[in-house]
Amino acid sequence: MDMRRLVGRNFARLRLEKGMTQEEIAASANISQQYVSGLERGQRNPTVVSLYKIAQALGVSHMELVRPQASDETPDRR
Amino acid sequence: MDMRRLVGRNFARLRLEKGMTQEEIAASANISQQYVSGLERGQRNPTVVSLYKIAQALGVSHMELVRPQASDETPDRR
Repeated sequence: MDMRRLVGRNFARLRLEKGMTQEEIAASANISQQYVSGLERGQRNPTVVSLYKIAQALGVSHMELVRPQASDETPDRR
Repeated sequence: MDMRRLVGRNFARLRLEKGMTQEEIAASANISQQYVSGLERGQRNPTVVSLYKIAQALGVSHMELVRPQASDETPDRR
């Protein structure tokens, strides 16, 4: 499983559900907007401490950021 | 929430449940035994990619390593 992409997809989905901008998350989590943008594009490999900080900014459990979606669970998708 | 300690506690519990040694996990995940030991003592801040690798070595979902336990959820424990 590509964890960077999984976290990025979850993050982007949850951010939009919350109606927040990348800038708002960055300010709230005290991280750069560049980091948020890279995270969303699946280019970042956050530590568990960063994961928690980002989840707090989103107002969700950190579990939501690493939760596999239905398509990730399929063992041999073609 | 102290994510380092949360991951360390979950990791130690799951490893013992699986009856595996720190050395076995280290060999399986291709990481040092020192890293495994530090992880278990809550001194490591693994990235999500490392988390996945360690979960694979344990034979569990990476979700299990970051799952809060009952005592972690209490908002104002005294």
